[in-house]
Amino acid sequence: MTDIPHDTQHTDNLPQHLLQVQHLLEKHALVEVVAHNQELPRSDRHALLDTLLHKQHLAQLRQKLEDLHPADIAYILEALPIEQRLLVWELVKAERDGEILIEVSDAVRESLIATMSRDELVEATEQLDTDEIADLAPDLPHNVMRDVFKSLSIEEREQLRSAMSYPEDSVGALMDFSMVHVREDVSLEVVSRYLRRFDELPDHTDQVFVVDRDDHFKGVLPINLIVVNEPDTIVGTLMKTETIQLHPDDKADQAAQAFERYDLVSAPVVDEDGKLVGRVTVNVVLDFIREESDTDLLNQAGLREEEDIFASVWKSAQNRWAWLALNLCTAFFASRVIGGFEDTIEKFVALAALMPIVAGIAGNSANQTTTIIIRSLALGQITQANARRLILKELAISGLNGVVWGGIAGLFAYFLYHSIALGVVMTSAMVLNLCVGALVGLAIPLLLEKLGRDPAIGASVMITAITDSGGFFIFLGLATIFLI
Amino acid sequence: MTDIPHDTQHTDNLPQHLLQVQHLLEKHALVEVVAHNQELPRSDRHALLDTLLHKQHLAQLRQKLEDLHPADIAYILEALPIEQRLLVWELVKAERDGEILIEVSDAVRESLIATMSRDELVEATEQLDTDEIADLAPDLPHNVMRDVFKSLSIEEREQLRSAMSYPEDSVGALMDFSMVHVREDVSLEVVSRYLRRFDELPDHTDQVFVVDRDDHFKGVLPINLIVVNEPDTIVGTLMKTETIQLHPDDKADQAAQAFERYDLVSAPVVDEDGKLVGRVTVNVVLDFIREESDTDLLNQAGLREEEDIFASVWKSAQNRWAWLALNLCTAFFASRVIGGFEDTIEKFVALAALMPIVAGIAGNSANQTTTIIIRSLALGQITQANARRLILKELAISGLNGVVWGGIAGLFAYFLYHSIALGVVMTSAMVLNLCVGALVGLAIPLLLEKLGRDPAIGASVMITAITDSGGFFIFLGLATIFLI
Repeated sequence: MTDIPHDTQHTDNLPQHLLQVQHLLEKHALVEVVAHNQELPRSDRHALLDTLLHKQHLAQLRQKLEDLHPADIAYILEALPIEQRLLVWELVKAERDGEILIEVSDAVRESLIATMSRDELVEATEQLDTDEIADLAPDLPHNVMRDVFKSLSIEEREQLRSAMSYPEDSVGALMDFSMVHVREDVSLEVVSRYLRRFDELPDHTDQVFVVDRDDHFKGVLPINLIVVNEPDTIVGTLMKTETIQLHPDDKADQAAQAFERYDLVSAPVVDEDGKLVGRVTVNVVLDFIREESDTDLLNQAGLREEEDIFASVWKSAQNRWAWLALNLCTAFFASRVIGGFEDTIEKFVALAALMPIVAGIAGNSANQTTTIIIRSLALGQITQANARRLILKELAISGLNGVVWGGIAGLFAYFLYHSIALGVVMTSAMVLNLCVGALVGLAIPLLLEKLGRDPAIGASVMITAITDSGGFFIFLGLATIFLI
Repeated sequence: MTDIPHDTQHTDNLPQHLLQVQHLLEKHALVEVVAHNQELPRSDRHALLDTLLHKQHLAQLRQKLEDLHPADIAYILEALPIEQRLLVWELVKAERDGEILIEVSDAVRESLIATMSRDELVEATEQLDTDEIADLAPDLPHNVMRDVFKSLSIEEREQLRSAMSYPEDSVGALMDFSMVHVREDVSLEVVSRYLRRFDELPDHTDQVFVVDRDDHFKGVLPINLIVVNEPDTIVGTLMKTETIQLHPDDKADQAAQAFERYDLVSAPVVDEDGKLVGRVTVNVVLDFIREESDTDLLNQAGLREEEDIFASVWKSAQNRWAWLALNLCTAFFASRVIGGFEDTIEKFVALAALMPIVAGIAGNSANQTTTIIIRSLALGQITQANARRLILKELAISGLNGVVWGGIAGLFAYFLYHSIALGVVMTSAMVLNLCVGALVGLAIPLLLEKLGRDPAIGASVMITAITDSGGFFIFLGLATIFLI
């Protein structure tokens, strides 16, 4: 046996693969060919490529791709501009298409599926498990799904139907069906003999599930216990019955929390009759958590969905428009609030320069409050008993912030415009608007949660809308009363 | 064997535990006692509690806590106000203190450790592995760490020293030392006999590591293969040599990506001489990913760190001040930009009402661009070859947004103030400021990345500062030239 060369398996070596693939693509001046020929019909472009490319380089590239893990190919596909991406996609062996489609992001998957024929798509699903087919299903054309369905066994059809019937954020959608089950009255010896009939156990099999003859879930038997105990031990005496059970209708969130809390590798999914219907594994949970947190970050910036960085300008713009349109509406409203005080501003033009300060600080402070509340809601830390306490606390912080930062802003206004009254109006407006911000920052996520909506979505637009308009109204209103 | 009652192990049952604990606490009118006596010195409060509480209820609560998983107790502690939290903490059996301290959030851990004596703390660490002690170490007083260190064996001291020597975001900090290793020239029979000497294998042992007599890493042997193969097979013929190897100095990020990509449960950590020094397991990676994404969300709202929702007003305010101070500075700057155009505003007061629209939309659009870029940087999708393409694309989107939304805003201004010139100035200012936003939104994360900083931190403050001041300057500047 030879020692493993240090770099070939090193993790930060992955961008290296991407560079090598890009290098090979550039060697054929492919980048230029592609750039100059985007207008050509597809078939002409192919002809052109074929004449321009050295067959040998293509073979080299194909070889390189063959050595890579499907997840790495997915990564390379995501990081390549669309034309290069499709070229690499064609070089990938057809029997690997399915596992790669599972790995790529939604946006990129769409671009790949669009280039594949019905037969190619059906063939691609043939190497996949039913739970993986269910993941792909929303992106596949109807006629492809019909063909796929026909090619499955009755049991697989049942699994596919069940996997597709659960909403995206439920345990049912995370579940797979490749589990190993045994009876409780057999010995470890028998279990071992049974397991030896597998060439390899399903991935993430850290435990086998113990069921009765009607598939009712009885408990779990960790593989580790099979290994450390004597072969004549009976399963029933070793199995753990006090174990986490998930239900297909549970929220995926809750399953993820259970995996985090109890450090699980796999967990049984049991239906309402107590029958074992599937299992959830930690790799799926890991992907789910990553996706959730990505979605949170994207939503905070008002992006509806993950964006293929090489998508067309038109497509990307559409992804961003809903939010900008909403923002424009709230900005128009705030603008009309200011418009209502034009007489005041005309008499005391300094107000125009100072009003964004009042609006801005309160907006930021309110977003801090909301972030804390959304986080506490997600962790389940807010109860009826402590809600009042939290509200008082956030108001107190805002009052404190108002005195400190409002005081500074008031001094700033006084020194610039030599008006004590203006300074006092500035400070008062900041204190008031910070308190408005705190109330809104508390109320919006709590209200969204009560309505059964995701408290994070859209909270920040609504908050900024209120602290902006509110800030302008309070500041200019106070100024109209006390300065004019 | 009895069937497992359906609800006792149901996952969404966890808040139930919290409610039960809170109910038990309320039964003794503890909430009121605590609320009314926060001013009392600690010892008096205790005396009061003792007389008011029925011993029996406390026993009931203690029993309830004993049945719970440490992670669940941690969750309950986090969701209780500080006084109730400390009462529950005292009821927890001393020998569970260590594992619970590991589970709670940093902010809550601090509040618990503050109440513990030196001896209690030393005792708490006694049940922990060295990698867990290393996680607690930053929060423990120096004299406690000295005592802990003295109580360890030489091997454990070495492990603790090594675990504490790696920076927080490195693989070394995620690593644990509880791994099982075997030689490559033995049979599975021998391995099984060796494993049976353990009562239970370390958590997340999905594979044992194969090393030579000098601890050089040779490969891994999945437990599953031990189970499915005949006992006389030799380890060397079964073990996998093409496997992911982490290095203690690798970035934790990269390890997390490897776990996600290759669906790992555990991975060996190997030093530069090729010696096996530890392993990383998926549960630690899961916690790391969750923490990272929490930190991202908190940083986006300008919160320096995780906040105990029951921390004092004063402590919470401090957590939020750095950001508000920074925002006040940029707001003052923007205010001075407006101040420079006071003459213009005095002549055409509508400008004051319209200028926040120009600034706001560009800020939002720029934050969308930055989010996309930060994400692509994190996924390693941005290379020298495609950077220019991305810049052109973002500029094109901004141009398109400028024409569409700037056009609408221009019409809005025209209809309100019946001035074509004003409408044109409005539209032009929006187009220009959206392009400024796109450039800034691209440049700031790319620059931060080049400087080796986290591209997400502070990006949004800087961007808003520039799109605000820039928007006011462009809009009022164009108005001064063309309208006055």
